[in-house]
Amino acid sequence: MKKRIVLLPGDGIGKEVINSAKDVLNAIAEEYNHTFSFESHEIGGAAIDLYGTPLPETTVDACKQADAVLLGAVGGPKWDSNPSHLRPERGLLGIRKALDLYANLRPIKGFKNLLHASPLKEEVVSGSDLLIVRELTGGLYFGTPSERRDNGNSVVDTLVYSRQEIERIVDKGFQAAQQRRGHLTSVDKANVLESSKLWREIVEEKKAQYPDVAVEHVLVDAAAMKLITNPTQFDVIVTENLFGDILSDEASVITGSLGMLPSASLNENGVGLYEPVHGSAPDIAGKGVANPVAMILSAALMLRYSFQLNDEAKVIEDAVQAVLDAGFHTGDIQVPEGRLVGTAEMTKLIADYI
Amino acid sequence: MKKRIVLLPGDGIGKEVINSAKDVLNAIAEEYNHTFSFESHEIGGAAIDLYGTPLPETTVDACKQADAVLLGAVGGPKWDSNPSHLRPERGLLGIRKALDLYANLRPIKGFKNLLHASPLKEEVVSGSDLLIVRELTGGLYFGTPSERRDNGNSVVDTLVYSRQEIERIVDKGFQAAQQRRGHLTSVDKANVLESSKLWREIVEEKKAQYPDVAVEHVLVDAAAMKLITNPTQFDVIVTENLFGDILSDEASVITGSLGMLPSASLNENGVGLYEPVHGSAPDIAGKGVANPVAMILSAALMLRYSFQLNDEAKVIEDAVQAVLDAGFHTGDIQVPEGRLVGTAEMTKLIADYI
Ligand SMILES: CC(C)[C@H](C(=O)O)[C@@H](O)C(=O)O
Ligand SMILES: CC(C)[C@H](C(=O)O)[C@@H](O)C(=O)O
Repeated sequence: MKKRIVLLPGDGIGKEVINSAKDVLNAIAEEYNHTFSFESHEIGGAAIDLYGTPLPETTVDACKQADAVLLGAVGGPKWDSNPSHLRPERGLLGIRKALDLYANLRPIKGFKNLLHASPLKEEVVSGSDLLIVRELTGGLYFGTPSERRDNGNSVVDTLVYSRQEIERIVDKGFQAAQQRRGHLTSVDKANVLESSKLWREIVEEKKAQYPDVAVEHVLVDAAAMKLITNPTQFDVIVTENLFGDILSDEASVITGSLGMLPSASLNENGVGLYEPVHGSAPDIAGKGVANPVAMILSAALMLRYSFQLNDEAKVIEDAVQAVLDAGFHTGDIQVPEGRLVGTAEMTKLIADYI
Repeated sequence: MKKRIVLLPGDGIGKEVINSAKDVLNAIAEEYNHTFSFESHEIGGAAIDLYGTPLPETTVDACKQADAVLLGAVGGPKWDSNPSHLRPERGLLGIRKALDLYANLRPIKGFKNLLHASPLKEEVVSGSDLLIVRELTGGLYFGTPSERRDNGNSVVDTLVYSRQEIERIVDKGFQAAQQRRGHLTSVDKANVLESSKLWREIVEEKKAQYPDVAVEHVLVDAAAMKLITNPTQFDVIVTENLFGDILSDEASVITGSLGMLPSASLNENGVGLYEPVHGSAPDIAGKGVANPVAMILSAALMLRYSFQLNDEAKVIEDAVQAVLDAGFHTGDIQVPEGRLVGTAEMTKLIADYI
């Protein structure tokens, strides 16, 4: 198979972990006789510094022509006081919108021998394996007006969804549940928000099309609680953009480290952008100590979702598991009697296994 | 001291636990020579059934004339498919708005001998003691438009805040931090929302007025994570309405049960409404098994915040602590070798201690 992959390293540890993904993909290419070509482009703070914008046209064009996109992370204190349109996050939000990546899939599964690193009791997290399907191109993130009013004396943001936007993400949720354990939890705030009421109605309408899926509605406040008290009760969670942002970061505690969590953002045509859930971690950037696992697992998701290379994806996941099982870990996780390694060594261990 | 207290039992277990608060307050009145008069009014589903509206005018008027209001809980499956204006939650939102109860204080403190009931490891939660100051009358909960558009093909909700609304709640946050450990965490989503940017600016402006308070800004997604990984890092958290809703339910897991958490909702004039954080729990309603502690502790907050009866408030809190220390607990909490009691017995134990 021949595939063109665009790499968007971004900022901070993004620049480091993106190389880990590349190394691991090269190992896969060699082993399975694929040809992966890589092309690097700027986004976020790095793009602001070079081109004066967080999302240059050349980056967007390259992504549109690619078979898939891998993104590291964006952001850092250097650009934190920039005006809105010159903030690194704008690059991320911009590329999501430009490619219409409305479906963000965030699988959360504890690695058995890292469960002790979770702040949750082992008996609570043990066996938890859930997927958050987050709407990524609508809601409060993109609604207008989003502006100051009355000479700066008031401010407004807008939560807007079209029926079609809700329908397509809800479908993704149902389909994901069909491929997993057949259970879908739709999270909303239907006792307060009109948008959530429409969301809930659409979920109810769609039920008939997926008779093999059991559906449950949970209010976002209750979901934030249940995710911690009883994470194993969840299979697939489908929710709107901001709720998904909050709940997926929260759910990361189940695994003990944000450094383990990959994500896939897909559009209707199967073109996808794959990125770790973690950010650019400016505090540890440039030190060679970042955990590359989330980025490497994101590359595995790319193989599975964009290229249908299920076996190859599985090999990467197995490699990660094997290296963790052998006791290797980066500094974000404490493993008693484990072996602390840096980004490069962790990457090499995983690539070598392949 | 002579005080007129309005009781709003509401629905489900609200009707049961409100009596517990009354019994405990009567014990305080007797012991400390106060005169508390009680008057009961309908709200929520009970009001819909009797008067066809979740918030009758008589209820609003009574609350306005009272020295303080105690509320049980609203809601239940019976009214879940009602149209928006006939849902029990409208009563709750309506009374908050009618009394301008913009400051919702939710203290979260683990009870030492119940920590084992938390899904979090004991070493993680041990010593945690935080206060969430939630804005309660603005944001997405009350912004207009909140409606269907294009023949029901799209939907919009509006997140709106005036500068003055943000200023007054941020002030409350700073003041609470001054009275506690001097640390304020302001939670927002300033990397995406314009309203959060104004929020953050206002917190920055106010800093100078409270030089004894250390301020930190945390994004809501990161806060949802840190609340679990490291709850002891927080003292006071100040945030807008919806973020506060989600984070306070989430934070309840620290204590092992939502059944322990009181809340106070205050306006500029010190009139307050006091209610447990938990809901109406229709599944256990009417069985006499509900945990009355959150409601009783809400009554303690009333004595402290509305009547400045600090000693009396403390006595209630000590009574609760003593009864829990003696091993008594309701069914929502597992205490090995503890003594399981119902609502009435739990209430009597606490009242007797006083
Ligand atoms: C960086 C930020 C804009 C982004 C988001 O809120 O979507 C991030 O938190 C995420 O979850 O991918
Ligand atoms: C019942 C509901 C409207 C309410 C809210 O969202 O404010 C509740 O969850 C709360 O936190 O008091």
